[in-house]
Amino acid sequence: MSSPLDIERRKSRVSSRELAYVLHQSKSNVEKLERLEQLLVQDPLFNHEKMYYLTRGEQYKRATQMAGRAEIIAHRNNLSEEDTALLHVVLQGFTGCPSSTALHTGMFFKNLGLLFTDEQQAKWMQMAKQWRMVGCYAQTELGHGSNVRGLETTATYIPATDEFEIHSPTLTSMKWWPGALARTANFGVVYARLLLGGKDYGVHNFMVQLRDLETHDAMAGVTLGDIGPKIGFNNVDNGYCTFDHVRIPREQMGMRVATVTREGTYVKNSEVPQEVLYFTMLQTRMTYIRSSGLALAKACTITIRYSGVRQQGYDANKPDSKEELSVLDYQTQQYRLFPLLAAAYAITLTGNQVDEFSLQLADQIKHGDLSMLVVGHAMSCGLKVLTSEIACSGIETCRRACGGHGYLLSSGLPVLLGDILQMVTAEGENFVLCQQTARALLKVHGQFQSSGSLPSAMQFIANIGKPSHVQPRNKGQWLELETYIDVFQQRFLHSLRGLVNKMSSEPSIAAGIQNNSMHCYKLSNAYTNLVLVNNFVKAVRSASALTKERLASNDILPVLQQLCQLFALTQLEATAGEFMESGCVFPSEMPIIRANIEELLTLIRPHAVTLVDGFNFSDHTLNSTLGRYDGNVYEALYESAQHDPLNHSSDKVALHELLRPIRDEIARETGAKARL
Amino acid sequence: MSSPLDIERRKSRVSSRELAYVLHQSKSNVEKLERLEQLLVQDPLFNHEKMYYLTRGEQYKRATQMAGRAEIIAHRNNLSEEDTALLHVVLQGFTGCPSSTALHTGMFFKNLGLLFTDEQQAKWMQMAKQWRMVGCYAQTELGHGSNVRGLETTATYIPATDEFEIHSPTLTSMKWWPGALARTANFGVVYARLLLGGKDYGVHNFMVQLRDLETHDAMAGVTLGDIGPKIGFNNVDNGYCTFDHVRIPREQMGMRVATVTREGTYVKNSEVPQEVLYFTMLQTRMTYIRSSGLALAKACTITIRYSGVRQQGYDANKPDSKEELSVLDYQTQQYRLFPLLAAAYAITLTGNQVDEFSLQLADQIKHGDLSMLVVGHAMSCGLKVLTSEIACSGIETCRRACGGHGYLLSSGLPVLLGDILQMVTAEGENFVLCQQTARALLKVHGQFQSSGSLPSAMQFIANIGKPSHVQPRNKGQWLELETYIDVFQQRFLHSLRGLVNKMSSEPSIAAGIQNNSMHCYKLSNAYTNLVLVNNFVKAVRSASALTKERLASNDILPVLQQLCQLFALTQLEATAGEFMESGCVFPSEMPIIRANIEELLTLIRPHAVTLVDGFNFSDHTLNSTLGRYDGNVYEALYESAQHDPLNHSSDKVALHELLRPIRDEIARETGAKARL
Repeated sequence: MSSPLDIERRKSRVSSRELAYVLHQSKSNVEKLERLEQLLVQDPLFNHEKMYYLTRGEQYKRATQMAGRAEIIAHRNNLSEEDTALLHVVLQGFTGCPSSTALHTGMFFKNLGLLFTDEQQAKWMQMAKQWRMVGCYAQTELGHGSNVRGLETTATYIPATDEFEIHSPTLTSMKWWPGALARTANFGVVYARLLLGGKDYGVHNFMVQLRDLETHDAMAGVTLGDIGPKIGFNNVDNGYCTFDHVRIPREQMGMRVATVTREGTYVKNSEVPQEVLYFTMLQTRMTYIRSSGLALAKACTITIRYSGVRQQGYDANKPDSKEELSVLDYQTQQYRLFPLLAAAYAITLTGNQVDEFSLQLADQIKHGDLSMLVVGHAMSCGLKVLTSEIACSGIETCRRACGGHGYLLSSGLPVLLGDILQMVTAEGENFVLCQQTARALLKVHGQFQSSGSLPSAMQFIANIGKPSHVQPRNKGQWLELETYIDVFQQRFLHSLRGLVNKMSSEPSIAAGIQNNSMHCYKLSNAYTNLVLVNNFVKAVRSASALTKERLASNDILPVLQQLCQLFALTQLEATAGEFMESGCVFPSEMPIIRANIEELLTLIRPHAVTLVDGFNFSDHTLNSTLGRYDGNVYEALYESAQHDPLNHSSDKVALHELLRPIRDEIARETGAKARL
Repeated sequence: MSSPLDIERRKSRVSSRELAYVLHQSKSNVEKLERLEQLLVQDPLFNHEKMYYLTRGEQYKRATQMAGRAEIIAHRNNLSEEDTALLHVVLQGFTGCPSSTALHTGMFFKNLGLLFTDEQQAKWMQMAKQWRMVGCYAQTELGHGSNVRGLETTATYIPATDEFEIHSPTLTSMKWWPGALARTANFGVVYARLLLGGKDYGVHNFMVQLRDLETHDAMAGVTLGDIGPKIGFNNVDNGYCTFDHVRIPREQMGMRVATVTREGTYVKNSEVPQEVLYFTMLQTRMTYIRSSGLALAKACTITIRYSGVRQQGYDANKPDSKEELSVLDYQTQQYRLFPLLAAAYAITLTGNQVDEFSLQLADQIKHGDLSMLVVGHAMSCGLKVLTSEIACSGIETCRRACGGHGYLLSSGLPVLLGDILQMVTAEGENFVLCQQTARALLKVHGQFQSSGSLPSAMQFIANIGKPSHVQPRNKGQWLELETYIDVFQQRFLHSLRGLVNKMSSEPSIAAGIQNNSMHCYKLSNAYTNLVLVNNFVKAVRSASALTKERLASNDILPVLQQLCQLFALTQLEATAGEFMESGCVFPSEMPIIRANIEELLTLIRPHAVTLVDGFNFSDHTLNSTLGRYDGNVYEALYESAQHDPLNHSSDKVALHELLRPIRDEIARETGAKARL
């Protein structure tokens, strides 16, 4: 007997393998990822059928063990540095969230390279690579998040001993949130206010030893702990730390940006370009785009497969039929899921293009060309915000579309969501970050006004003075890719024009942005929506080149184009009012737009399961009872529940803690009444 | 020194106590709830500072103990049945979600009364009230959710022994999800297909003993277990159950709706009105409205208080100021939170009105008057859907507005959200339920077309043929309460008109609804938005009567009116495209509408903390480090983390599981190289 998913897969002539090559940019990339995953899963340590049944302490322990084992596997297989990094990415893909060690190999390494001199790096880099030194990045304090200027931890220079004294003067100055701080790291890059002879030189970085390298005990004066359970991120030991007059050698200040001499004089290093510091943050934000796309793609895979398996209710169009309908046949289910599927494609394809852009930008900056930095800034801020929000709300939509079973951890969806939710807050809170997108866009616009020139990626700003489109479009025109580029541009330009106008009556740019921060948020999303639509259209056109060169078959192209159309039209529909306000969409066009959407849903329907197969997630990576490739969801749900420790206990809580005490009370009461 | 929240509270002349009387309908209600809460919190069992640090097993145990203790406290204080029920509501309020026993005292009692004859009830009701019998409601199966017709469990009549044989013939027929099934209940009302002499009579109810009353061991043939961890609802033991040819006496079929005679003949009881069965579901849905309002109100209280405490960044309008701004002063924070505060008021005030309506309806039905039932049906379905969605997305918005700390369980927000999230799926999945709203609205419209008459609560449908408003409104008109009623009506009528038109080309109502299910979803929300706006306006007008009678002071009224204006305008803005499409809002009016919203935010700003104080949640009920009345959030965060068991362990996982294994590997490798 064919399983429901076999039947689904036979409905489409599209090859999911070819889709995988498009999404992962090449056949060899796909094969390499599969090979690396095999290196891990053949080790029984990486079996994770019990993952959803572990306590937080057990989760941390398991993630820590796995990270160590992956490192050893990489050594034994002589993996290159690049492949070792990719191996950790694969690992992260199937543990839900990074382990604390990712903060060591990622953020700590980067900071070491960025904030410390070559000499300082020489001292520590080898230790760090050999895991004698394990670091964390200790910036955020209990009372201070994104505003670095407000940090309170102090580093006071003590000339007598040539040391800094690191100290936490208040409760709110306690370091709070850094990952790997609670239980993993033995060193931290600590952000603290530099005090020299009573004068405050602002926030600088200091390498502080937190634990003994051999015993792992906290150093004298250092108090460490865990900040408690969170929604997700349970592999990571986010911690707190206070310093009680902890002394470190002067040489452990991050001396790349500025130095303090033996005499206690502050010397700024004018050779280090500020833009480089700034560029690392930009690159980090860029990585969030890929993470958002991956997480949303996983949720779509789980939910669309399960919807293909699940039968519920009867077809009212065939009153005599006794067969239940597949949930995937219902319009509301399609309306909820297919636009997200399209968004997962849009974000993944944009992620590929952004990675290229990021490399190009890095190269330019290395050669002293900073001209594209403002575009990179706007793009990284805007995309981080919009893609994280689409992913978070999209995963929750998927979860709900799985009905009751989506509420179970074993579905994989709650943990997926919990781990990704931090993205809307971390690396720049989304509403704060949108002010940066707006600031960059205003800067580009200002340069255009004064010089008439625009960066190539923002040529469309030249249209800001041109009148909006005024002719309603017909049904066919609303399916043309050019239309989407036009209307998303016009919506964006209308918003930019509005903000520029408002700024003219503001005392300063900073004040204008603060006073119009909701406008900035909408502007950022209007800009980023345009970027996503542009990139999707570009990707469809380059796939068209692929099929011409017979690298992919002809069946792929129409479906990719339909996804692109669906993405643009449903993004438009969600904020239709903004488009109408900008004058590029008429209220009377909405029925046509919706009719197109409904037809696209029907066209995409037969390819739905194949389209999610294209993301090429293994069952191991998905770790979902509902998202299995074979569709045996009910067996999986039942088997998974057998791992629950509650099902191995027979303590009869209800009898002893509820029923007997009440029965006894009633008996006592009855007895008392009888005695009266 | 004044705390930041003291300063906030002094900004408003509104009395939070008077707001509490308005929100809870009377002074005596407020005082009774406070008295009942005191009965619980003086018992140390109800201390819950460790709540967020318990495993799922521990949470269940604690909830079970507390439910038992509450029952005993009610006995010892001679509480009336009504006050005992209210005591459990108070308990539920501060444990986040109900305990399994609420399913016994709520659903099981209701089912006993509804599905079983007086004679059957006489046999079991006393046992149930004395907690010898603890019941659950076993409908949902592993493969079958909302479609009752698809259930597979069988109840076969065995004439030889005058018994039914309850059996689970397939994996998908396993009972799966029922609360209290896994570890609490010793009886269940089991939904199964009645088989008589080989013929299937459809789904009926059977009282099945699951566990021994004394030992609490599963009965022979009954297999019970827990379905595993979920996002929330960790107090409840949602379970699974299979029946292996389990025999029960024939008399244990729910005989109110139909009976099976000794000979095995099926007899339908024509005296029981189907509407009554149906009305209980309607009443259950109605209770979700209040739960949604409460949960959203809690989230707003936590977040607005914390935003009043939290200082972040400097005021760009005062470049020389060194003082950090309160987060509550930022426009984006206001834009995110105040519309939710207004929604919490709207839902709570509607909840009050719905409770009255529900009593009135029950009374009418008792007297055989079913005329209002269709309104009750539309309203309960529509309000359940929209209020649960506003609450869920609103709580998540609040959580994000708390920045990183909102990601911690100790903030209270994740658990609040996790427990409420089930509401979008339970008691009718929201997208499915909207089809019922649409069906009810079509029915009312059809009756209007044929008879010209409309229920009093739906008189506005009479305007369906009238042309829409065509004149743009000015700024002042966009603040008039009448305007909101008008535009929300027109948006709704446009949607209803559209569906009616589509239905004319559909083969049947059922098919039309299935084929236009997205339209049904939007229609349901358009209708319910109108109901919420209508009710808020009504509440403001009746508060105006209160102040005239000097029962509340005059300061309350303007603020309530501003909340009502903000609610209506922000609800409009969120779906502005739909309003424009219906012709009642012009794209050119949006800047005026937004300007009004921004001014309202500024007007409400000084009252924000007082407005959340008005909900009158105790610190105990909120159980939030961020939402404390005194604003000492940083102390609370730190102290809460001390309860984490991880902070009382010193197992040095990182050293033993990560650092040493890698160091050993590197040493081995280096040694091997040296030997070469």
